Amino acid sequence: MNKVQPKTLPGFMELLPKDQVKFNQMKETIQHSYEKFGFLPLDTPVIELSNVLLAKAGGETEKQIYRFEKGDSDLSLRFDLTVPLAKYVSEYYNELSFPFKRYQIGKVYRGERAQKGRYREFYQCDIDVIGDGELSLINDAQLPAVIYNTFKELGFDNFTIHINNRKILNGLFNSLELNDKSVDVLRIIDKIDKIGNNKVKEELAKIEVESEKIDKILDFILIQGSTDEKIEALNNLGFEDETYKEGLEELTQVINYIRGFNVPEEYFMIDLKIARGLDYYTGTVYETFLNEYRSLGSICSGGRYENLAEFYTDKKLPGVGISIGLTRLFYQLNEQNLIKANKDSIADVIVIPVDETADKCLSVATKLREAGINTDIYIEEAKMKKKMKFADRSLIPYAMIVGEDEINSGNYTVKDMKTGEQFKGSIEEIIEKIK
Amino acid sequence: MNKVQPKTLPGFMELLPKDQVKFNQMKETIQHSYEKFGFLPLDTPVIELSNVLLAKAGGETEKQIYRFEKGDSDLSLRFDLTVPLAKYVSEYYNELSFPFKRYQIGKVYRGERAQKGRYREFYQCDIDVIGDGELSLINDAQLPAVIYNTFKELGFDNFTIHINNRKILNGLFNSLELNDKSVDVLRIIDKIDKIGNNKVKEELAKIEVESEKIDKILDFILIQGSTDEKIEALNNLGFEDETYKEGLEELTQVINYIRGFNVPEEYFMIDLKIARGLDYYTGTVYETFLNEYRSLGSICSGGRYENLAEFYTDKKLPGVGISIGLTRLFYQLNEQNLIKANKDSIADVIVIPVDETADKCLSVATKLREAGINTDIYIEEAKMKKKMKFADRSLIPYAMIVGEDEINSGNYTVKDMKTGEQFKGSIEEIIEKIK
Repeated sequence: MNKVQPKTLPGFMELLPKDQVKFNQMKETIQHSYEKFGFLPLDTPVIELSNVLLAKAGGETEKQIYRFEKGDSDLSLRFDLTVPLAKYVSEYYNELSFPFKRYQIGKVYRGERAQKGRYREFYQCDIDVIGDGELSLINDAQLPAVIYNTFKELGFDNFTIHINNRKILNGLFNSLELNDKSVDVLRIIDKIDKIGNNKVKEELAKIEVESEKIDKILDFILIQGSTDEKIEALNNLGFEDETYKEGLEELTQVINYIRGFNVPEEYFMIDLKIARGLDYYTGTVYETFLNEYRSLGSICSGGRYENLAEFYTDKKLPGVGISIGLTRLFYQLNEQNLIKANKDSIADVIVIPVDETADKCLSVATKLREAGINTDIYIEEAKMKKKMKFADRSLIPYAMIVGEDEINSGNYTVKDMKTGEQFKGSIEEIIEKIK
Repeated sequence: MNKVQPKTLPGFMELLPKDQVKFNQMKETIQHSYEKFGFLPLDTPVIELSNVLLAKAGGETEKQIYRFEKGDSDLSLRFDLTVPLAKYVSEYYNELSFPFKRYQIGKVYRGERAQKGRYREFYQCDIDVIGDGELSLINDAQLPAVIYNTFKELGFDNFTIHINNRKILNGLFNSLELNDKSVDVLRIIDKIDKIGNNKVKEELAKIEVESEKIDKILDFILIQGSTDEKIEALNNLGFEDETYKEGLEELTQVINYIRGFNVPEEYFMIDLKIARGLDYYTGTVYETFLNEYRSLGSICSGGRYENLAEFYTDKKLPGVGISIGLTRLFYQLNEQNLIKANKDSIADVIVIPVDETADKCLSVATKLREAGINTDIYIEEAKMKKKMKFADRSLIPYAMIVGEDEINSGNYTVKDMKTGEQFKGSIEEIIEKIK
């Protein structure tokens, strides 16, 4: 028979079991952290009507969409989890309680140019809080509390949540009458850590920002100090623009609320350079960095938006949300061996029958499972060496070698596969030991 | 602005939060049961190359495929999890340890005619064990042990796993020289419970089965009694066909091994009528029924196959697997109010600030979370009545109403939302109570 080559599409992550075990642990840790804050699960379809999904999209995004026809329907695969949320909240508005706090962890699709570390199918792990008409600023502080808890539970210690407020930037540009150049200015000041102050000044001059405005931008962007010192400095800059003042007032409150959630001071900071896309976010914005691995970029980003679903409904639905791009994050962390997994295997123990006693070991495995222990059993007939190799490669922490003697006596031996240490005892004692 | 109607595609399940909470509990219970047996997680792409995915498919299946082009690639959405498994095992053969036990829980896509209870996007929850060259029959008994454990953990008590062996049926047809009519004969005898013995005889006569063969078929199909009595009767029928004898020997062994796994006798039975598709399965086959709700059909089916991946590789890879069609099962159970959920909400408790004390309650919520309790907090400014209505609708079991007094005194009150009972104590005592 002619064989078809079993090939997975480029840009689609497919893991070997030992990596999948790690990936799933990360995914479940994120899920449980989101649930700890009472966010509700949501699971929208991967396929939507194109006119619904693309109500807002355009330009670059639309080119990347997986779009096709089936029967008479013009369909698209979701490219994020925010548009499906907007659809969902509009569609079921009358049946939902607001504020609506939901998480969604699911795959999204973007036909980007395939390259190392870039995926066409990838998991996003999103949380959003949607208000009906209005939404308290405390929510803007709750999300950093979720980010803090999530990355702590993922085993990270040295990360910082960078916080800004778009209104401060907008207010700055208003004051300096630079609204028409805001995109370019942001792009240039974003490079300040790399290229230095003087080069930033040069580039700003090149796009015809007046030198006195350049000074003001640098005063602003170079504000240093503790979080409270930065707030003080922002107050002292003397901008009288209303939007600026509103943004600063919001930022000040959000910082206080974050402290109210007991997020330790060293895990968040004001970062006046972050903007997160100019159209969408309207208030608080977040980025999160592993301080020792800044090159990974932001590992969790998001912000506040005025109106989630204006393409679907007249209802004003303000929200605030964050997203973790899990597939890319996993790839990057795994490349650098930075994944903190609690366990390397699904099974806690593998029962290995001596000779051909497999059928007599089945109830031993059942007893371990009934005690809540994930238990594999090597069922096939094989030499002991092959069985032990299987156990070894599977990274299961304990092996229990069971022969006639063990079954008859009720005395079992369990081996710690890492240390080689052996422990003998009754099935109850073994269960105790493994737990 | 012109609004787009926020519409979800027909045939695509999208749940309200309270149902999604139940759905996810079922999904996670199934996952944990699969993991208890040491099955490894797998997560293959939703999109595959059409020539890979459709190497085997044809006819009805191919018509249902979501197939489309993107750039130069001919792509399809997976329609089951077995073909991706075959691809995966062939692709990574050298890196896997055999027997390879994997579970996969994921969405699959079939563009079927939309109708109530039928879905175009649905979850399958599959486990398979794949051998390299050969695979012990004990695996065929392990799967009923998994099914038993899974449905027990889902809260069901009255279900039966029906077991047969295709070789017995094939041997029967060999003996009676009815191989060319086997599809029709199976279709007719499958209806015996509905239409009765006489009508079955009539229909068999209509397709020109000789009357002496009809008697033998009915002798076979009407075998009654306990599992052991059925095995004895099958031995006494006097068929000398080798395939029949092999099938009977396998079935006998599988039954004994199932007992070895301590699956109670009342949860499984031999059912000579089940065949599960004529092409694919070659040995043991399973169906599972809720005895009080037989109309749901089989809720978990599967069987043994000779060769998983012959379209991709020369390696002989025999396997045995089962699948739960979760989306349809959830729909059916939920319609009849048969879901046994451990909890109705994600959060265990909701903190409700009195008046405008929300900011002072944030650290209370944090403390509860740090103790492992999923905690929601009502952050918005609102009348107490509105806050309590939110708590009530959210089905969160406990509400903790927190005002200045509580914060100053450190004495809190938690209300059981079902009984109305109140409990007072320190934060530590409240944590103890909720846990």
